[in-house]
Amino acid sequence: MTVAPSPADKFTFGLWTVGWQAQDPFGDPTRPALDPVETVHRLAELGAYGVTFHDDDLIPFGSADDERAKHIARFREALDATGLKVPMATTNLFKHPVFKDGAFTSNDRDVRRYALRKVMRNLDLAAELGADTYVFWGGREGSESDAAKDVRAALDRYREGLDMLAAYVTDRGYGIRFALEPKPNEPRGDILLPTIGHALGFISTLEHADMVGLNPEVGHEQMAGLNFAHGIAQALWQGKLFHIDLNGQRGIKFDQDLVFGHGDLLNAFFLVDLLETGGYEGPRHFDYKPSRTEDITGVWQSAAANMSTYLLLKERAAAFRADPEVVEARAAARVDDLGTPTLAAGETYADLLADRTAFEDFDPEEAAERGLGAVRLTQLAVEHLMGAR
Amino acid sequence: MTVAPSPADKFTFGLWTVGWQAQDPFGDPTRPALDPVETVHRLAELGAYGVTFHDDDLIPFGSADDERAKHIARFREALDATGLKVPMATTNLFKHPVFKDGAFTSNDRDVRRYALRKVMRNLDLAAELGADTYVFWGGREGSESDAAKDVRAALDRYREGLDMLAAYVTDRGYGIRFALEPKPNEPRGDILLPTIGHALGFISTLEHADMVGLNPEVGHEQMAGLNFAHGIAQALWQGKLFHIDLNGQRGIKFDQDLVFGHGDLLNAFFLVDLLETGGYEGPRHFDYKPSRTEDITGVWQSAAANMSTYLLLKERAAAFRADPEVVEARAAARVDDLGTPTLAAGETYADLLADRTAFEDFDPEEAAERGLGAVRLTQLAVEHLMGAR
Amino acid sequence: MTVAPSPADKFTFGLWTVGWQAQDPFGDPTRPALDPVETVHRLAELGAYGVTFHDDDLIPFGSADDERAKHIARFREALDATGLKVPMATTNLFKHPVFKDGAFTSNDRDVRRYALRKVMRNLDLAAELGADTYVFWGGREGSESDAAKDVRAALDRYREGLDMLAAYVTDRGYGIRFALEPKPNEPRGDILLPTIGHALGFISTLEHADMVGLNPEVGHEQMAGLNFAHGIAQALWQGKLFHIDLNGQRGIKFDQDLVFGHGDLLNAFFLVDLLETGGYEGPRHFDYKPSRTEDITGVWQSAAANMSTYLLLKERAAAFRADPEVVEARAAARVDDLGTPTLAAGETYADLLADRTAFEDFDPEEAAERGLGAVRLTQLAVEHLMGAR
Amino acid sequence: MTVAPSPADKFTFGLWTVGWQAQDPFGDPTRPALDPVETVHRLAELGAYGVTFHDDDLIPFGSADDERAKHIARFREALDATGLKVPMATTNLFKHPVFKDGAFTSNDRDVRRYALRKVMRNLDLAAELGADTYVFWGGREGSESDAAKDVRAALDRYREGLDMLAAYVTDRGYGIRFALEPKPNEPRGDILLPTIGHALGFISTLEHADMVGLNPEVGHEQMAGLNFAHGIAQALWQGKLFHIDLNGQRGIKFDQDLVFGHGDLLNAFFLVDLLETGGYEGPRHFDYKPSRTEDITGVWQSAAANMSTYLLLKERAAAFRADPEVVEARAAARVDDLGTPTLAAGETYADLLADRTAFEDFDPEEAAERGLGAVRLTQLAVEHLMGAR
Repeated sequence: MTVAPSPADKFTFGLWTVGWQAQDPFGDPTRPALDPVETVHRLAELGAYGVTFHDDDLIPFGSADDERAKHIARFREALDATGLKVPMATTNLFKHPVFKDGAFTSNDRDVRRYALRKVMRNLDLAAELGADTYVFWGGREGSESDAAKDVRAALDRYREGLDMLAAYVTDRGYGIRFALEPKPNEPRGDILLPTIGHALGFISTLEHADMVGLNPEVGHEQMAGLNFAHGIAQALWQGKLFHIDLNGQRGIKFDQDLVFGHGDLLNAFFLVDLLETGGYEGPRHFDYKPSRTEDITGVWQSAAANMSTYLLLKERAAAFRADPEVVEARAAARVDDLGTPTLAAGETYADLLADRTAFEDFDPEEAAERGLGAVRLTQLAVEHLMGAR
Repeated sequence: MTVAPSPADKFTFGLWTVGWQAQDPFGDPTRPALDPVETVHRLAELGAYGVTFHDDDLIPFGSADDERAKHIARFREALDATGLKVPMATTNLFKHPVFKDGAFTSNDRDVRRYALRKVMRNLDLAAELGADTYVFWGGREGSESDAAKDVRAALDRYREGLDMLAAYVTDRGYGIRFALEPKPNEPRGDILLPTIGHALGFISTLEHADMVGLNPEVGHEQMAGLNFAHGIAQALWQGKLFHIDLNGQRGIKFDQDLVFGHGDLLNAFFLVDLLETGGYEGPRHFDYKPSRTEDITGVWQSAAANMSTYLLLKERAAAFRADPEVVEARAAARVDDLGTPTLAAGETYADLLADRTAFEDFDPEEAAERGLGAVRLTQLAVEHLMGAR
Repeated sequence: MTVAPSPADKFTFGLWTVGWQAQDPFGDPTRPALDPVETVHRLAELGAYGVTFHDDDLIPFGSADDERAKHIARFREALDATGLKVPMATTNLFKHPVFKDGAFTSNDRDVRRYALRKVMRNLDLAAELGADTYVFWGGREGSESDAAKDVRAALDRYREGLDMLAAYVTDRGYGIRFALEPKPNEPRGDILLPTIGHALGFISTLEHADMVGLNPEVGHEQMAGLNFAHGIAQALWQGKLFHIDLNGQRGIKFDQDLVFGHGDLLNAFFLVDLLETGGYEGPRHFDYKPSRTEDITGVWQSAAANMSTYLLLKERAAAFRADPEVVEARAAARVDDLGTPTLAAGETYADLLADRTAFEDFDPEEAAERGLGAVRLTQLAVEHLMGAR
Repeated sequence: MTVAPSPADKFTFGLWTVGWQAQDPFGDPTRPALDPVETVHRLAELGAYGVTFHDDDLIPFGSADDERAKHIARFREALDATGLKVPMATTNLFKHPVFKDGAFTSNDRDVRRYALRKVMRNLDLAAELGADTYVFWGGREGSESDAAKDVRAALDRYREGLDMLAAYVTDRGYGIRFALEPKPNEPRGDILLPTIGHALGFISTLEHADMVGLNPEVGHEQMAGLNFAHGIAQALWQGKLFHIDLNGQRGIKFDQDLVFGHGDLLNAFFLVDLLETGGYEGPRHFDYKPSRTEDITGVWQSAAANMSTYLLLKERAAAFRADPEVVEARAAARVDDLGTPTLAAGETYADLLADRTAFEDFDPEEAAERGLGAVRLTQLAVEHLMGAR
């Protein structure tokens, strides 16, 4: 039996996810536009905790100020009626042709300035709606060839933009943190800050590094063939998992944005285990697209499927951890021994050098014979995932 | 006509490159072992600047101390005779079965301690031979599944090991810097610190972060589908390009270690342009493998091919930069405008907010019409690469 | 100096290539629509031989019959005025939402019938305009998951459709051959007949197999990490290279459709060598997209770049073949010996079994010592490609 | 509860799988050699049906005739004692350096002749041991660059070799069929016949095409990013699924040979469903490698894990098919309607042309509105896979 989601599970969805009209590089939309107000009500009925948005999802690009105010008011009303939260917002810096060569890193300085202003405007709204995370996905910050983009200058501009925006948010007292969302490619041939790692490296150079973290997305890391659970572990380890985008991807190809769990299910199992036991307390945000083959019924079924699968994986992962056979197998594999420092308390390299048991009297042949038992543990995980234990 | 390499070009090779006996996962060696002394002489004749080594390349694993001394003495003699330098050394922490689950991050603490000692021992030798860079490729630090490895604990141990070794090197006054070499997978299913980015992020957490940088390898980034020139640009930008491994790779597959330029030639062109104009002054180190089909004649031909191709690319890249048509096309594409800060000198976000030309009076439709001219620039690069201009 | 293209080079372009308005999954169009008549004139000026089209490129979907006739008449006029040929045409079976689950293999039989009719209608036009090749790219024939598509039934329907259309074309005496265009994924998660190989296998089951061949595309095979020149060699070997789509792709990612040569340049070199020496006499058809960053000037520059690069590669490949050092190196590598049958003329397996020199007296150790010289040959190719010999 | 395997399940293993000593490109063996006789006994205890072998797995390369006979006799004895079958055998044409440039397609004709003799010798043994399938994995048939291999000549030689061997087997009345095993790369940079499709295309050109089919391997297709279940469906559809290699792979990277189900579990679910319902009656052959971290206990645990996971997936897939909600959802998605021919019985293209409901009166807008329901079906599959229904 599948479990019903509730707001306590902190599931959130972008307006643009269920609202995707299913236009793709080779095809026209297959679904009509969704009214954000309807989306709020439907998500609430399904048990979601919150909703997120790009400025242009809520307020069509180029709206006059009074139109803008009306869109916001209607949205607020729906939020109030349903109790849905807005824990995160972001800026659309990729759809309009003006951003074709980037936003913060466009070769065109006018575009860069415009992009910063567009962000500031929506930061005000995000704060007003109570968001505490603001996502930056720099989907157009990149290039198709190495001829026309000076990557080092681009990184200078990227940093300049984020430093300025961080100062703005701090000065206004918005209580907002920034979360960078890496992606290796698509729509650009190569995107700057292509992985969790590149973003972590970049963040370490920022003026307000402490208020900038990550919003990693399952499919984006898997598009580079990377282990998503590993990436999340490093982000958590560096204290930088500010937000997360859950979805599904079937290997290295275009960005599929499938339902969570409809891609690499085994990695999703270990991911949920990590999120639930690793101290992450933010929203479980689904950034997926209902397949283009689906009608509006399929849209809401797919939204529900994301939450069901998460909850099932959570149950399975907890049962895995609790199984005495797993406890024994983890001990046999010395999984927790890795938490023990390599040096004893107070031991220095000089002590280590003096310890003949560590080298001179250590028998590598003997030590090499100890089996890890990793396959057994993996099989136990597979069987728990399959509900067979 | 191809140009002959000279030591001034700073080309270096690992002993293990030309010395690879061509054993692969499905096949036995096709070539006999090479004596390191012969390698030194042959590389010198070919115009190389230096040679690098893993401890076990020079001194067979498990050698007694007197044997060890003899191996070192013969090697030194060859260096003296030829003038070849040893700018870099590294540790073999992957071949012996004892490292099957990792070295610094093995679940087995005894193995971790042994690994640190093995490194310290070879650091002494590296310093003695004048190396100023010490490379860490953690090829066994990883896992095949997420069940048996706690990635956060592993990163703790990785950091602990590097912090201790950095203290050791500093205290001894060795003048050595550390260079981490990322790789996404192979031989482990997933390797920790899989890309340039992940290593940059990790380094920012180290106690001696300033003395730790990177040794990126062409093929390792391309195995994750990443743009190598982009990665190198970020490493340079963060001041972390301490060393580089040049070779060739044909896409996302097993680690091919082809001759430099025998993979993605266009990216190699932009890479050489970046290395030659971007301030990198370290060795141009080839970490490649002569194909298993080749005999010893082919080995030396392949070593020479790496250097020839680099020098040719250097010529072509310089001609590209100097071509007036390229200069004009770069200006038209505003490539250098990206060097101009987005904010004017002294401008604050408040000023930007007050600048109506940046937003209220900015016409995105008009700005969107400006073409970038990236394809034209790329075509000019292709034609220069092909020697057609 | 780059060489100017002429109609004798048989370069052709799809209306949809230069006409791409640069809408992508994350962005709106950056360029206005191009009038097909203008395209014909511009391509002729640039030295192209012909132009190709999808029905809907020429005649907007849903046009009334008289509108349709006008579009065709204007197009014909431009062809007559310029001398441009229409060697190939194809059907748009992917853009309209009705094809969201496929055309010939949609689960919806009404859609399958409609698709066949749409093809028949455009086959009539193709024949009228003198095309001798008709391409089938089944971009929507596939699925996102394995739950909702019976692949074997889909292949039955695919075959049924092609068999019926082949009968139609034959009965009408159109002199048209069919060319299937494989692609592994995008826009569907997995597309049926994902590679050259799968299409060759499928063709062998068709009723009119002799009139069905391939239209392979550079990027489509490279999206699966496959060697395009190898694939083309197999297609030629099976007598099935009926047409070809040239473009550029930078590894396994979304379908980039870059300018030919702006991807894997070394493979492009060997591809052109193969096309020019391997007996292929059809058009050199560019199926690329001018990058979204480009304005209309960039569009025509990019069109010209495809042709320039092809002609340069042709020159370089011919020089490679003619170089006496290459001739010698190829002989040393026994490249042409592979053309000699393994059995002597008239030799049977019984004779081979009786030949002790083949096994009992054969010394594998000795034979294993012979080097192939493949790296030397590759380096000669790289240097020819770079115009350095 | 997991189900115990029995010979009726037809599970088979290669001697080289559990017997892999865990030498990899960067590391020495971690396990001692296994005696084939022990392997036979252990596999029988675990519930396997049979065992398979390469000639050199059973009889060390270069053994004298009397040694050879002894190895065979001991093996036979173990088979007799346990009742294990040998349904398949194959030739090692990749390990010895003599095959470094290929076996049937080596540029060296002496090697080609030797390879054919090596196969014939082992065919005799295969027949003697009762095998009815003989696998050809041409792992060395390929190249690292396009310079030194004439692919069309190579395909000629490949065909020549298989044609001769087919004649041999037929003449001897061995009752053996051939099964080609595709792989895209590794150990060669590019391998000929890289996918199921390429092999199907090639087979259609053989003299004895009817006795040549496929032995596809999960990981080999997934190394090219292809959907394995789709490939198997096409192979079945063409009547060419003669044998199958089951294992696990985590995306596009080196060949991992993980335990079946430890890679893409969702695709494995649909694969088992297809094998169990699609008419395949051959062995379920595991071609995997126990991870290098494991000791001998882990080896046998991993062998058992392959079978457990298969049986669990079989249960889950059967429950999925039987679930009334799935039956209804499949009907709603018209999955089985795809089995209905597009043309009615006796209908010709002329009839279709005359059917105005198919085109003139067909309303594509209306038809486009019908949702497929693929996400709902996929979610039902995920929940069945997870034992949650």
